[in-house]
Amino acid sequence: MRTNRRHLLSAAALGAGGFIAFEKIVEAAAIQHDHGNPGDGGFGRRVDQLPPGPAVAYHDPKDVAAMPDFRFSLDGNHPKVTSGGWAKEATVHQFPISKGIAGVHMFLDPGASRELHWHAIAAEWAYVIDGRCQTVVLEPSGASEINNFEPGDLWYFAKGHGHSIQTIGDKPCHFILSFDNGAFSEHGTFSITDWIDLTPKDMLAKEFGVPKDVFDAFPKGEAYIQAGPVLPAEDALEAPWPKESTHKFRLLRDNRAVRDFDGGSFRLATIDEFPASKSMSGGLMVIKPGDMRKLHWNPNANEWHYYLRGKGQVAAFGSGGRGKVAEFQPGDVAYIPIGFGHAIRNIGDEDLEIVQTWDNPKFEEIDLDKWVASSPRYLLANNFAGVGQDDIKKLKKA
Amino acid sequence: MRTNRRHLLSAAALGAGGFIAFEKIVEAAAIQHDHGNPGDGGFGRRVDQLPPGPAVAYHDPKDVAAMPDFRFSLDGNHPKVTSGGWAKEATVHQFPISKGIAGVHMFLDPGASRELHWHAIAAEWAYVIDGRCQTVVLEPSGASEINNFEPGDLWYFAKGHGHSIQTIGDKPCHFILSFDNGAFSEHGTFSITDWIDLTPKDMLAKEFGVPKDVFDAFPKGEAYIQAGPVLPAEDALEAPWPKESTHKFRLLRDNRAVRDFDGGSFRLATIDEFPASKSMSGGLMVIKPGDMRKLHWNPNANEWHYYLRGKGQVAAFGSGGRGKVAEFQPGDVAYIPIGFGHAIRNIGDEDLEIVQTWDNPKFEEIDLDKWVASSPRYLLANNFAGVGQDDIKKLKKA
Amino acid sequence: MRTNRRHLLSAAALGAGGFIAFEKIVEAAAIQHDHGNPGDGGFGRRVDQLPPGPAVAYHDPKDVAAMPDFRFSLDGNHPKVTSGGWAKEATVHQFPISKGIAGVHMFLDPGASRELHWHAIAAEWAYVIDGRCQTVVLEPSGASEINNFEPGDLWYFAKGHGHSIQTIGDKPCHFILSFDNGAFSEHGTFSITDWIDLTPKDMLAKEFGVPKDVFDAFPKGEAYIQAGPVLPAEDALEAPWPKESTHKFRLLRDNRAVRDFDGGSFRLATIDEFPASKSMSGGLMVIKPGDMRKLHWNPNANEWHYYLRGKGQVAAFGSGGRGKVAEFQPGDVAYIPIGFGHAIRNIGDEDLEIVQTWDNPKFEEIDLDKWVASSPRYLLANNFAGVGQDDIKKLKKA
Repeated sequence: MRTNRRHLLSAAALGAGGFIAFEKIVEAAAIQHDHGNPGDGGFGRRVDQLPPGPAVAYHDPKDVAAMPDFRFSLDGNHPKVTSGGWAKEATVHQFPISKGIAGVHMFLDPGASRELHWHAIAAEWAYVIDGRCQTVVLEPSGASEINNFEPGDLWYFAKGHGHSIQTIGDKPCHFILSFDNGAFSEHGTFSITDWIDLTPKDMLAKEFGVPKDVFDAFPKGEAYIQAGPVLPAEDALEAPWPKESTHKFRLLRDNRAVRDFDGGSFRLATIDEFPASKSMSGGLMVIKPGDMRKLHWNPNANEWHYYLRGKGQVAAFGSGGRGKVAEFQPGDVAYIPIGFGHAIRNIGDEDLEIVQTWDNPKFEEIDLDKWVASSPRYLLANNFAGVGQDDIKKLKKA
Repeated sequence: MRTNRRHLLSAAALGAGGFIAFEKIVEAAAIQHDHGNPGDGGFGRRVDQLPPGPAVAYHDPKDVAAMPDFRFSLDGNHPKVTSGGWAKEATVHQFPISKGIAGVHMFLDPGASRELHWHAIAAEWAYVIDGRCQTVVLEPSGASEINNFEPGDLWYFAKGHGHSIQTIGDKPCHFILSFDNGAFSEHGTFSITDWIDLTPKDMLAKEFGVPKDVFDAFPKGEAYIQAGPVLPAEDALEAPWPKESTHKFRLLRDNRAVRDFDGGSFRLATIDEFPASKSMSGGLMVIKPGDMRKLHWNPNANEWHYYLRGKGQVAAFGSGGRGKVAEFQPGDVAYIPIGFGHAIRNIGDEDLEIVQTWDNPKFEEIDLDKWVASSPRYLLANNFAGVGQDDIKKLKKA
Repeated sequence: MRTNRRHLLSAAALGAGGFIAFEKIVEAAAIQHDHGNPGDGGFGRRVDQLPPGPAVAYHDPKDVAAMPDFRFSLDGNHPKVTSGGWAKEATVHQFPISKGIAGVHMFLDPGASRELHWHAIAAEWAYVIDGRCQTVVLEPSGASEINNFEPGDLWYFAKGHGHSIQTIGDKPCHFILSFDNGAFSEHGTFSITDWIDLTPKDMLAKEFGVPKDVFDAFPKGEAYIQAGPVLPAEDALEAPWPKESTHKFRLLRDNRAVRDFDGGSFRLATIDEFPASKSMSGGLMVIKPGDMRKLHWNPNANEWHYYLRGKGQVAAFGSGGRGKVAEFQPGDVAYIPIGFGHAIRNIGDEDLEIVQTWDNPKFEEIDLDKWVASSPRYLLANNFAGVGQDDIKKLKKA
């Protein structure tokens, strides 16, 4: 029986979260005949004919895990310290939600280098916070690029490509690294001194055509970040590649990156602006005091934040009645899983500065206000039952 | 020693499933010398020189799990009921084999809408069973499309794209949804009322530029399917996109979809006919009483069925001696994992109608009869040892 | 306070592996102020202000699993023996490290065939060791190719595509198979006799248009490798496809495959030389006695070896202080996970011959000596602290 009578159950009769408990489903089953005649129209047995037994509710709130924590203090984590500097990390081991993206804050003394190394399971994206450094990267083709970096510059090294980072000049250099695999740390970092130390000496002699005892003078174990004499700027010659292939992007100096919004500025490098970054996007967002990056979500990527300056508040929405609000200060990281709704607000007195990355080279986001604006008024009136027509109009104009 | 003597072990000497038990392997090892001289030809130690210890048999039937159930009553599952309708689902939680594809039967009352929402981890494919409805979808580009649907029409919304569904006119509307992720339910559905309810009121006020108390009138919790006044057909204006990008495909009215076969008809929309459906294919198969969709398999996708009408029988083959036959009636779903052999037979008195989907936008299948027909006769004679030449000829002609 | 003073902790003060224990981190925290003033520059709380509690060290050696075994005797494994031959396999079940690639050594008697079958979860790459055979493969398009093979020829069949292998002439044939999924065995092999045996006879009669009792004469269970009369070479007619699509590549006869190196020869078929091999690369490496395939790694693929002849030594590097050296003889397989450093040395008196495959159709490798050669001298001097300038020069020249 097709009917246009409204369903007898009102929204108010529903339990928390919009669900009805199993005991009520039995009642609902009788009423439910109004939803069409079960057995008609190609669908099967009637709900009220179900055999007794445990219910498998649709989206039972009890089956939904609690909203996971999405804040972690990267700078508060214990560092790995070697002779020339230190690094702190946030991986799934310390920050379980961050399955898609891991992060590192690395600090190099003047003269130090993060030695020749590669990562077997992740690409590396970097934002230089302070100081100057030089990277050397070798691609499988055998071609290498040498680039010098200043604050606000980015680099990107593909998974498995060999690279090194060396401080230029007499000031230290530090930067934020972001990796497109939350578990990257475990087997991820292959350092040249570790490799040489573990390889039979006669193999090394044959490899390099030198006597075996040359390797007696090599570092034992992994140097990681190695102290050394200051590299003067005049010795740090660059050998950059053309724009189509270079591993360097000048985020703060390249106008193609500008994507400002109401209340703040945003500079972003996707694969379109920075073609080398084949698996990630990233940039810098600055929000003015009291302002907000409005409610939105990213349909194609996980999102990672490192807080550089200011005081922020993030409201995240995880579906199924799960939402959480957290506050962020410099040194903290946030992780927003793909598809989770979120907004970021500056709740401090100075600019809020956030390094942001995504594990997708194409950047996509959908804004709540635009979605509401593009929906027919009769749809919104239905969806927001109880809200007056005038207020619906105002919401649409936003 | 290279030899052309036939192996001394006959097929009849082999145990169930064509395997020999470990105790027999020792005997086999001696005989096995006929299979070439171990140690020659680049392969190593002799099997009869193996140290004693537990055997690791090749494809040991004991290591192979039992053939999983591939039938579930979607319509027999408990519904999620809210003010404007209901939905029943089949996910890996209720139907463990269905890792690649989940399904939902959703029913909207006249005037009801499935509110603005998105799915974080799955795309949505739909077949309209009965009634009329309107969808509004918003893409990350900020562009939105509005489409009206009738029975036999399809829609496709990419993972994470915002959308809503509203009944048109004074009849209810119901449809089958299919998602390209068997686990989609857990964190998958993000509804706008749930989001707004969980977001701090001062953020919402800033978001929409309205006073905080506007949000006091909003629904509490998730509206999900919201009852409301009937939407007259004349108010439901469409804003469709061109054929290359539209989210709508008229499966029963578009001749490009026709792929009839001996004994039945099949209408299918792949990415070629329906370019928006970037991660799935799907269609409607009708098999005449007594007829059959012959034995075949899909090498590139999992397959999902929803039975609309009639009575069907499916024989599925899972390798390693595992096969199962099951019967299906309206409201049931089937799941055939990628690569599993299968055939579908109409064992009832009326047409058998099945909505079918695959988790790959390119459709590929391989038919047993064509395979046999394209194989040389000497190969088949060897393969089907014991079958006469005349019968081999007949099998090839099929 | 920005400073160019070198860090007070010398490398010599660090523990094994270049790490400092947690107890030392507290001391380090005080000293660490030299690494910049925590709180400045956008990073947060001071390490020495951390609350007491368990340390989460960066790359704690205790968290790193031991270096896995990367050697297994494929030919020493127990065979699956049926009437016409045998097969031995190495999958993740016997050889846990080999997650990406499984391997099989298969031996067919004269007249035998590996019956019509397909693999649901893996593509198949093959290198013919000895003898001659014919394959028949059916693609989803319905087109089939028939090819004859001799030693040194390759074939490639995509995941799920139906195929068979039959010995040609009066000599046995054996070959190495490599699959792009280390777990392929479990549900992977779908044989036509098994399928027919498990399908209801009335379905089969309808399928082929023959009486039910025709199937009484069919093999029971799976024939797998079926014995039969010798297939004379003059009956084994080929039906090959053009170069752009053929499933056959003549590795030892096609000059496009040559990639010789200092001390050995290498013939490789990637997707560029062998377009059908859409998910794998593979070839044959021959290393002269005393010579070596130098230290390198593959950034985009796992690597698999089958040793055909000679005696080899492989040194593998797994990061985090993990390295292992193993020796290989004919019949052994090796597995080098993506990104792991490795070198291969001939430690015997004859040529070392290795069939090698990768689970990526594009081949990429990075050589240690080229990396060192392309790095600035000041970087290497820092990295290899303690090594003299003259030796650095020699290393760079390698």
